[in-house]
Amino acid sequence: MTLREQIQHKINNKTKPLGALGKLEEVALQIALIQETLTPSLVKPHIVVFAASHGIASEGVSAYPSEVTFQMVLNFLQGGAAINVFTKQNGIELALVDAGVDHDFEPDENLIDAKINRGTKSFLSESAMTESECQRAIEKGKEIVKNIAKTGCNVIGFGEMGIGNTSSAAVIMSKLLNIPIEDCVGKGTGVNPDQYQNKINILMKAISNHAEVSINPMQVLQTFGGFEIAMMCGAFLAAAEEKMVLMVDGFISSAAFLCAVKLNPAIKDFAVFCHQSEEKGHRILLESLNVKPLLNLDMRLGEGTGCAVAYPLIKSAVAFLNEMASFESAGVSDK
Amino acid sequence: MTLREQIQHKINNKTKPLGALGKLEEVALQIALIQETLTPSLVKPHIVVFAASHGIASEGVSAYPSEVTFQMVLNFLQGGAAINVFTKQNGIELALVDAGVDHDFEPDENLIDAKINRGTKSFLSESAMTESECQRAIEKGKEIVKNIAKTGCNVIGFGEMGIGNTSSAAVIMSKLLNIPIEDCVGKGTGVNPDQYQNKINILMKAISNHAEVSINPMQVLQTFGGFEIAMMCGAFLAAAEEKMVLMVDGFISSAAFLCAVKLNPAIKDFAVFCHQSEEKGHRILLESLNVKPLLNLDMRLGEGTGCAVAYPLIKSAVAFLNEMASFESAGVSDK
Repeated sequence: MTLREQIQHKINNKTKPLGALGKLEEVALQIALIQETLTPSLVKPHIVVFAASHGIASEGVSAYPSEVTFQMVLNFLQGGAAINVFTKQNGIELALVDAGVDHDFEPDENLIDAKINRGTKSFLSESAMTESECQRAIEKGKEIVKNIAKTGCNVIGFGEMGIGNTSSAAVIMSKLLNIPIEDCVGKGTGVNPDQYQNKINILMKAISNHAEVSINPMQVLQTFGGFEIAMMCGAFLAAAEEKMVLMVDGFISSAAFLCAVKLNPAIKDFAVFCHQSEEKGHRILLESLNVKPLLNLDMRLGEGTGCAVAYPLIKSAVAFLNEMASFESAGVSDK
Repeated sequence: MTLREQIQHKINNKTKPLGALGKLEEVALQIALIQETLTPSLVKPHIVVFAASHGIASEGVSAYPSEVTFQMVLNFLQGGAAINVFTKQNGIELALVDAGVDHDFEPDENLIDAKINRGTKSFLSESAMTESECQRAIEKGKEIVKNIAKTGCNVIGFGEMGIGNTSSAAVIMSKLLNIPIEDCVGKGTGVNPDQYQNKINILMKAISNHAEVSINPMQVLQTFGGFEIAMMCGAFLAAAEEKMVLMVDGFISSAAFLCAVKLNPAIKDFAVFCHQSEEKGHRILLESLNVKPLLNLDMRLGEGTGCAVAYPLIKSAVAFLNEMASFESAGVSDK
């Protein structure tokens, strides 16, 4: 028997009707395959939140002012944000990264300084990053994950904070999947109908202003991305290299994953899609990847909160595989 | 401000976009209202699994033999079933009840003896229970919950084990909601297409053999129910009386809830619907109650497993309400 057959046999012989744990059985199989074992384990789960400022935010695409990005980083450091609460609840280590926030933070042992620049340029007319900035952001994301891997961590999720970043993510999705921008743009943190139409108009104009940009993921990332998105892209690539379980969060995180999977399609085998965001484009993005997420709770908060609240389900998948009795061991009659 | 307005104000002032925690915000509001406080807490969570044998199982409606019911009770006692694994993972106390299993168990401090009879009669031609049996089962369910309430427990879910019980649940649903039986019957533990058609035929015949049974929930329960279903019905009623948060599991548990909510519509305010089962009738049952469950993972195992794996999400709802910073306290700019 192949390893896959052995794992499936183990799942099928647990004291439950065949397939009765549904999606949890798929996750159990996937993680056992990633770890190449019949007895997988989840060690030192981490969520890394990358924060960065966005030039495009100055065009009025967001419901909140740009300064919220650095204010929220301070909130993360003080433990008051949703991601603090959920990671604490579920025993997940939280790492915070300044990927390029337009603010000078006091040195803090809980904030990884990976500032590429004080925010991107507005991609309405310019390229968001230089080629070198984009490269450095990706490399930094890889480096951060490799350092975390050294602690023994084998399951990791990535979150973000960056006012304006649903605009970045929408354009990346539109370009890489060749989907009209209107289908990729949602209300972000909560624009009103007028602001929403304005957001679409600005992003259409931005795309037409960069008509020369092909579907090359590196070029798309450099032109329309954010430092946190580029860093997450590198982080996904490195985490798969380290054979970690990748927890994919919502819309922004999935856009970063999309860049990464275009660069290395093999990483998809390592990814558990944690939730479907209420942000409009996310459903289509997930469908285009042909995946069904674990949760669909109309959440649209970012920060990695979808990963954090879904993590206990991933633990359940591993737990049943390791701990449930088999029909034989429990003396229960099979069909 | 009313209490509801005060809770909503507290939720809206957390450092997140308005409404961005989606369904978790609804659950937080609901639990705060149940407990009549701005700072709700979840104390000593319990899942009670009621097991019983079903006369209807002798008509060949299930993929598994009847003896699996008592074998699975032994598996619960030994800690080898899915519900053992998930309650242990999520810090939930598990209580096991012999509601009417066709087996003599050794006395065991972990098994509550509430045996009404050694299984129901086959409702193909007879009434599943006598009126007195049905009453006693409901009372026993209430008593068990009231004893658990004395420990301080304020959040409780009910699971079941009973080969044949999707047949009971399907007829209860069909009668109480006036929905054609074909739309209520699913594959249970996994019947093949021939067995599935046979299951539908038998249940149609049973319904026509009891044409005199009206839509009175007590009469429906007595005629088509199981001891575990009647006991869960009583358990839901008592738990709401005790102002507990009720976690509703899958198809069987929801059929019991349906009986209970017909007897006392006010209990719906206390119910959190944990998951949508893959069992065919469950989606329609939930829609008829006008509720959206937390999870939809294609699970169809019963035992309360949907409650057990959903419980961390309920904890997340309470945790963000209590622990997240507000815009003011964190110094974050609002819109």
